Amino acid sequence: MAGFVSFVSSGPGDPELLTRRAADRLGAADVVLYDDLSSGPVLAMAQRAELVPVGKRAGRPSAKQEAVNALILAHARAGRHVVRLKSGDAGMFGRLEEELAAVRGAGIAFEIVPGVSSVNAAAAVAGVPLTRRLTARRVQYLTGADVTGKLPSELNWAAIADPHAVTVVFMGQRSFPELAAGLIAHGLPPETPAMIAEAVTQHGQRLRRSTVAGLAAALRRDGPSPAPALIFYGPLAEISDAAVEWLAAGAED
Amino acid sequence: MAGFVSFVSSGPGDPELLTRRAADRLGAADVVLYDDLSSGPVLAMAQRAELVPVGKRAGRPSAKQEAVNALILAHARAGRHVVRLKSGDAGMFGRLEEELAAVRGAGIAFEIVPGVSSVNAAAAVAGVPLTRRLTARRVQYLTGADVTGKLPSELNWAAIADPHAVTVVFMGQRSFPELAAGLIAHGLPPETPAMIAEAVTQHGQRLRRSTVAGLAAALRRDGPSPAPALIFYGPLAEISDAAVEWLAAGAED
Repeated sequence: MAGFVSFVSSGPGDPELLTRRAADRLGAADVVLYDDLSSGPVLAMAQRAELVPVGKRAGRPSAKQEAVNALILAHARAGRHVVRLKSGDAGMFGRLEEELAAVRGAGIAFEIVPGVSSVNAAAAVAGVPLTRRLTARRVQYLTGADVTGKLPSELNWAAIADPHAVTVVFMGQRSFPELAAGLIAHGLPPETPAMIAEAVTQHGQRLRRSTVAGLAAALRRDGPSPAPALIFYGPLAEISDAAVEWLAAGAED
Repeated sequence: MAGFVSFVSSGPGDPELLTRRAADRLGAADVVLYDDLSSGPVLAMAQRAELVPVGKRAGRPSAKQEAVNALILAHARAGRHVVRLKSGDAGMFGRLEEELAAVRGAGIAFEIVPGVSSVNAAAAVAGVPLTRRLTARRVQYLTGADVTGKLPSELNWAAIADPHAVTVVFMGQRSFPELAAGLIAHGLPPETPAMIAEAVTQHGQRLRRSTVAGLAAALRRDGPSPAPALIFYGPLAEISDAAVEWLAAGAED
């Protein structure tokens, strides 16, 4: 009996932001393999499934990718409907490629269920559109941590120090002071608006606005929070919102 | 009696890819203001609402933004629960900023419901992750059409001709031949993988893969299709998939 693998995007964490298809797949799954980043309320929807944490954490060294691949294959080969649950959208910074290659290589049928990216959720909570008609026609996402957890060494500074793009940094809390110094050295004004969004739509959600220099100073001073966070910078719309705090360190204006 | 405005992301078109919250808001709405790009099956979920097309089409000149704003305010001031439905994710290339400013300015309560971007949906259908661990650590979205429908004049070529980023062009079918010529002139190899995704998850869905030069030649030869389309280029994973056709014009390899 052949199994089936659903790569399911869990969205940012709020079960109301699961897609209808994702909710359906969780309800039908025999086994759900989930990361530490996946939140409890989403898992609660997998009512009949065995829940298996696979323990990967974004931004940290992980020797376990092969073990995760093997676990997916083992459950599928036992004829089970496997849900591989991934935070945000499955195709973004989530090692989908490696798992997909393993499943395809084994000849196991699969599907990918796209989801709400944490980027879109954070922008919605903050009331800040990701694009602006005249001033922000390009949006870019990058990772602030390579496989060793450090700022990637090969960065396109002309791309990421562009004051006319909105940039979103994944897994960037630790490296942002270093990144910000580089951005400013490459011409990005230190007073460029910035925002950090932690635990978006989850318990402990916190959004703070500042500037690139101000946020770098705050993260250098306070260190990273344990919550997963996204950092936004660029021509962010200046829309005040009760959901967003302003960081004193960045109150240059 | 004060009304309420929900800016709701409709996702790529398949109602199964609505979020649970979006489905709830559609079911509860008094009136739904939708664009031409929104698909019928999603609208069918608004069972008790008046459905009002507001006729904007992405990438075409529109003198109507003020009229759309006024319509949102008029319905909300009449005490209704207004759903302003937006294709894909509401915060991406959708003029959310202007509508949000109007609603905030009028002191009307609102929410933003994020959704599945068409980018994430297209990547899922094609089985192509948007990021790759070593070769595609940056993803960027840009628009291929300014307010007059032409290729925007101020482009950051160092950013968008980067062979190590995955780039997604919104509303870019008409201008892609011109864009591709510029990219190649700025050093992007003509044989860089490219993909065009039309009507993702909707009736008439079509995904074709080629190269930057091959896709530009095909679009120059055949003209744009009437369906909304996203164009991807960069180090796209070379994963063959039954859902994706290969364009003969780009079959250099």
